[in-house]
This record gives sequence, structure tokens and C-alpha cells, in this order.
Amino acid sequence: MRKIGIHELEDIALGASLLGSGGGGDPYVGKLIALGAIKECGPVTLLDPDEVKDDAFVVPIAMMGAPTVLSEKGIGGEEYAVLTDMISRYYNRKIDALMPIEAGGVNSMLPFAAAARLGLPLVDVDGMGRAFPELQMVTFTIAGISATPMALTDEKGNCAIFKTITNKWTEELARAVTMSCGGSVSVILYCVDGKTMKNYGVKRIVTRSEKLGKAIREAKHGRLSPEENFLASCEGYKIFRGKITDIRREVRGAFNFGKAIFEGSGEYKDESAFVEFQNENLVVSVEGEIRATTPDLICLVDAETFIPLPTDALKYGKRVLIVGLQCYAAWRSAKGIELVGPRYFGYNTDYIPVERRVKGEVL
Amino acid sequence: MRKIGIHELEDIALGASLLGSGGGGDPYVGKLIALGAIKECGPVTLLDPDEVKDDAFVVPIAMMGAPTVLSEKGIGGEEYAVLTDMISRYYNRKIDALMPIEAGGVNSMLPFAAAARLGLPLVDVDGMGRAFPELQMVTFTIAGISATPMALTDEKGNCAIFKTITNKWTEELARAVTMSCGGSVSVILYCVDGKTMKNYGVKRIVTRSEKLGKAIREAKHGRLSPEENFLASCEGYKIFRGKITDIRREVRGAFNFGKAIFEGSGEYKDESAFVEFQNENLVVSVEGEIRATTPDLICLVDAETFIPLPTDALKYGKRVLIVGLQCYAAWRSAKGIELVGPRYFGYNTDYIPVERRVKGEVL
Repeated sequence: MRKIGIHELEDIALGASLLGSGGGGDPYVGKLIALGAIKECGPVTLLDPDEVKDDAFVVPIAMMGAPTVLSEKGIGGEEYAVLTDMISRYYNRKIDALMPIEAGGVNSMLPFAAAARLGLPLVDVDGMGRAFPELQMVTFTIAGISATPMALTDEKGNCAIFKTITNKWTEELARAVTMSCGGSVSVILYCVDGKTMKNYGVKRIVTRSEKLGKAIREAKHGRLSPEENFLASCEGYKIFRGKITDIRREVRGAFNFGKAIFEGSGEYKDESAFVEFQNENLVVSVEGEIRATTPDLICLVDAETFIPLPTDALKYGKRVLIVGLQCYAAWRSAKGIELVGPRYFGYNTDYIPVERRVKGEVL
Repeated sequence: MRKIGIHELEDIALGASLLGSGGGGDPYVGKLIALGAIKECGPVTLLDPDEVKDDAFVVPIAMMGAPTVLSEKGIGGEEYAVLTDMISRYYNRKIDALMPIEAGGVNSMLPFAAAARLGLPLVDVDGMGRAFPELQMVTFTIAGISATPMALTDEKGNCAIFKTITNKWTEELARAVTMSCGGSVSVILYCVDGKTMKNYGVKRIVTRSEKLGKAIREAKHGRLSPEENFLASCEGYKIFRGKITDIRREVRGAFNFGKAIFEGSGEYKDESAFVEFQNENLVVSVEGEIRATTPDLICLVDAETFIPLPTDALKYGKRVLIVGLQCYAAWRSAKGIELVGPRYFGYNTDYIPVERRVKGEVL
């Protein structure tokens, strides 16, 4: 158990933007919302997952929809109380703790705002260990746990509770309502007991985020070169270094699809690479050979500062370091690959772990 | 209190197709669903509104979406139990009786199926006295009563409960989910206590439906001409008689828009008329002069048999009698006109009651 105040939040937000793998929304707006809540209501208690009792009622809080919309619409003061009241009433249970469901991107921050405002502790765990574009892409889905009953509310006070036959249906129905509510809503879903949270959640991901944030911030102060310091402390695999020569984007079905093309520099001189994304980066190829795919994390960071770049910050001429991070172990299971592997996103390739891809191992 | 069996259902369905005013869906499919339930589970107890206690919990059941989709997807055996369980759990109350919310069209029949299957009585009341295209177009909205908490389920078992800030928002959100569920769902909404039902509902509309059905069926057996018998027993205003010379249709935003043009016959020889509709018939003009508008009922019936014609049965050459029926009194209030009057549907004309329009009174 420890307290998360304004200071700790900075590194967590920075690390969360790396875990976003290009998507999940820039944590910046989320950070402002969380900072506001902590300044007003005091620091948040972060519980280690093992400090939570097996029969505790643990409730993930997130936003659903377009993070860009969130930065215009904002979040009112009432949403989190409305959501927790709805869920408490539905289950007829008191909520013991909150948790983030998605540690990458803007959803890393909003649970801090909720925890501060509601005076509830937050558990150091999530259901992805990164960001993913669809609601069913959560480790709890691998375990057969339902996303529903799911509560949803907009900033105007419209509410819904869903109970669906599959998590894919939850995505379908909640997405439709989210669009009707103007593109962003607050949600509670995948409510679990403490035991399930500990068995299937990605433990200590908030602490990992904080370490990643620190790794970025302190890269220039280590004993190696800044790039070597950064890669060592984030346990990243170097995939490419170069500048963006082309970027194509397409908005389809409420997702940001696109492809960025890179021209190598330094040891990658005369080589080219591309990254394809659907909200998050999905595949990176160097000289026509795939070097990493989802669910491993493909992170594009500024080549000098190592600040992570969300896909909407990619521009012609930008100098970028492409780094691969190993995903959470459960994503590498057959069920995990089925849910978030390259074939789900339409790529005709098997999943091969990034640590093997970067060595050129293809089978 | 009386029993509604297979025999009574026939006339009610026939009358409901007249109250549909061209929309609300052909009650035929609904009748088959209700007949199936009554054959399996026995007749339904129909309560007069005044037999219901003031503190009774009365729950309207309906389908939302496209009736044409309903006839392909059907309704499973479980929807009504799922819906009533959800609502009972939400309110923590036992349901005392069901009611139709829309007596015109297919929604006149489905509550009979639900009542038979659940062993609950049905109240002889509705919230429209006809059919209307949008969810907030209910007499209870005039009284400021919320459509929500609203329960919704599809035939696959996906469920939602909505609570919204206005009935217009209920329409918006529930419509989005209905489309995602494939275009038709079963719903409970506008749950009321007995007192509210008696104060604001359209009383004895099921019995009126049955009488209208009988009027159609027995038109040829009265002491006047069949047309005179029909008009007298349904208290209808004759607006036009002729054949369809053109019909235009457009599907926009999940609604059927269109316009039918008529060439007069008999006393209307050399005259022309048109009817415009959005699911239901909205306006009828004869020789360029409006003769009836929503919320009065504009009913197109076969000129020989008086069988009501839904808008999708209108075809070139069809011989039609156009009849106006007075709407429920509350629709003629300022609030009623605001909700369902001609201006709401985009017509730049005041509402003038059909009994004055047909006499040529325009102010």
C-alpha cells in the first residue's frame, strides 16, 4: 500500500503513454483530470494486488470512445458516483476498490480521478498491460469472464446497464450507445472479486508504468548512451531508427487506421520500415520482414527524448526510435492470440514473440 | 374483467391495423405470435383500467424497431420473462399487470403473447390510442413521466436497462442498440403505477380496437351502404375515395418516408389527393387543401373490403377510401401538439382537428 500524489502521477502518465503503443489516447488530458481530483480530494491509496482480499469487490473504471472527444467534452464531477451507485445497486454490494482496466493511454489516469473523488483505493493491476482498441480485448476474456453487467454514463446523466451473451456483443452495443452519446462515455465493466483479479489481471502494471516513465525521464543520466540506458531500463528490443517519409490515415468504423513509412538512419541507413496501426500499432516491418506484431507492444518514441509518440503525433520528417516490448504472458496463450493476435486484425501471419522476431527467427 | 381468447384476438388485430394509421407494422405477425401463446398457455385476462388498484405496478411491453425485421427474426420464448425479471429486479417490485403502450399495429398483439406466457393480466389501456414512430410519443410524456428505467432484450439474450435525462434521449440510445441488435428488440418502458395509468393512459383502447375490427368485418351487413355502415360504426370522417396513381418511398434514418398520390372516383371524380407518411400517415391533402394532419388518424382502407392498408401495401392502381378518425383528446393539448403535431414532423401548418378540416374550416 502506498500513496499516489501529484509527483508520482507524472511518471505513471509518461509510462502509460509508452504502454499505449501508439493508441489508448494521450494520457495528458487524463492526467489533468486526475491531477485536478487529487488536488481537490487528496492522494490516492494504491494497493498491491496481494493486499486485496479474495472476496473483495473490485471495479474497473474507464472511458470508452474517442480520447480526442474526451479532451473537448471533458468529464463532469458526477460520472464516477453515478457509475458506482448503479453497479452497487445492481450487485447489491459495496465496492471495495477500483482498478484500471487499460494501463496504456488515457485510461491509466481516469481511475485515479475516480479513486480520489470517491475516496476508494485503487489496485495496482489492469486487464491488458497495454492499450487495445476493443472492449473484449482484456485478460479476463481469456478466462471466460463476462464484461457485463457493464454500467455506462455520459456527462449529461444518461445511463445504461448492459448484460450481454458475449464480450463481443458488449463491444457492439456499448459502442453504439457511446457514438449516440457524442463519442465518449465513462464505464464500469469486468467487475471481479479479489481472487479473480489476482488470478487473471496484469499485476503491478501501475508500478511498471511509473518505472517506464522514470526510464524515459532519466535516460540521459545513466552510465551508457541515452538510447542504451532507455532500452535497458524499459527492457525494450530495438527494432528501427529513422525518419518518417510518409504517413497515411483513414478513419473507418470509429477506429484510426493508418500506415507510417520510415527511412533508416545510423545502423539502419539505406533500410526502410513501416508500421501499421488500428488505434494501436499492430505490425512493424523492416526491409519487408516483420519484426514485431500485436500483442507485443510496438512503441514509437522520439529518437532524442524517448517521449512516446501516439499515432496522431506522427508527421513527415519526425525522427523516431521503434522499440518492441514483450506483452503480458497470458496474451501469448492460444486464447490470447485468438483474441488479439495478428490474424484477428487481418494479418496473414502467425504470432511470433518479439524477442524471436528481432533475431530474424520466423518459425 | 373478461377473457381474451383466439376468437376475440381476430377483431382486435383487425381494429389495431386501422389504429396503426398506415404504420405500426402489420399486426398479422404479432397476431400469430399472440395466437401461439394463447393456444399454448390459455386465454388472457383483460382488466378494465378502473379494476386496477392505484398502487399496482403496471408494465407496458412492446417491440421496438422495424416490424418487417420482426417477421423474419421472430420472438423467442424467453424475452418476456427476461424483461420482466430485469424490471422487477431494478424496481425491487412484483409486476401486477401488463399493458400495451401502442394499440395500433403489431404492438397491439405482442402484449397478449407476453400476458399469456407470463400468466399476468393485461390492462385495457395504451399510451397512444394509435401508432406513432418514436418512443417519446406517448401520452405519459405529456404528463412528464419518464420512459426510463427501460429494459430491452433481443432474441439472443443481450439485455440493457436505460435511464436517461429525457424521453428523446431514450429514443436516441435505445434506437442505436436496436439497430445493433439487428433491427428489432423487445422492450419494457414507461412503467407506471395504477393511478398514473388511469390518469394519463388511453382507456379501453383494446375494446375500441375490437369494435373497429367488428365494424370492418360487418360493414356489408348493416342497414346502410357498406361504406356508410363502416363510417358510422368507426366514427370516421370520409376524406377521399380514389385510386393510387403514384407512390414514392424513401428509407431515411430507419424510418419509411413516402408520398402516395390519388385520382378521385365517384363524388371525387376529377379531384386529386395525396398522403404523406413517416411510418404512419401524417398529412392528407385534397385539391391542394389539407384535410387532416397528425395526431388525428389518417386511415387508408381498401375501398371494397375496408381492410386497412399499411403504407407498404400501397400500390399503383389500388382503390382506396381515406378516412379520418379523431385522436385521443390529450393529443390536442398544446403539449400534445408539440410532441406529435404537424410541425414536429416538418409541416408548416397548425393543427386543426379533423372534424373541422373536413368541413373546410382552416382557422
